[in-house]
Amino acid sequence: MSVVISNKAGVREPEGETILHDLVSKAGFDQVESIRAGKHLRVRVSAKDAATARKLVERMCNELRIFNPAAHSCEVSEARPVP
Amino acid sequence: MSVVISNKAGVREPEGETILHDLVSKAGFDQVESIRAGKHLRVRVSAKDAATARKLVERMCNELRIFNPAAHSCEVSEARPVP
Repeated sequence: MSVVISNKAGVREPEGETILHDLVSKAGFDQVESIRAGKHLRVRVSAKDAATARKLVERMCNELRIFNPAAHSCEVSEARPVP
Repeated sequence: MSVVISNKAGVREPEGETILHDLVSKAGFDQVESIRAGKHLRVRVSAKDAATARKLVERMCNELRIFNPAAHSCEVSEARPVP
């Protein structure tokens, strides 16, 4: 499973803004409109199917307060294969 | 587009190990087998289609050395919708 923890939409995210303004835009990548940085967790779970695994990971993130629900959003999705 | 930058497979990743051993396993989530932490970037791009956007973001990550290719892997994929 793939977990993305990032600032809530509407809240400023200084790390991504810095990457965008001081690196990406200065290098001429004008098609890039915004960058928002966050934390990624790749969680390997033993479960009978993807839906069960997803529910477990969602419960884990919520119960253990891996993110701050006042400030962050937490999205759980099926992980992409490791390249 | 969604960019995940993480330690290469086979290289230890202490942040994820700490979350697993000191938090998740102690709380009894025994089905969780491994956790690897990394950086997530959500990049909004103006492009005619997803393939073009993806190529642009891959070129940006490589040319601007947003990651260290000796230590990290960098995966670009289509972003999931913001919840």
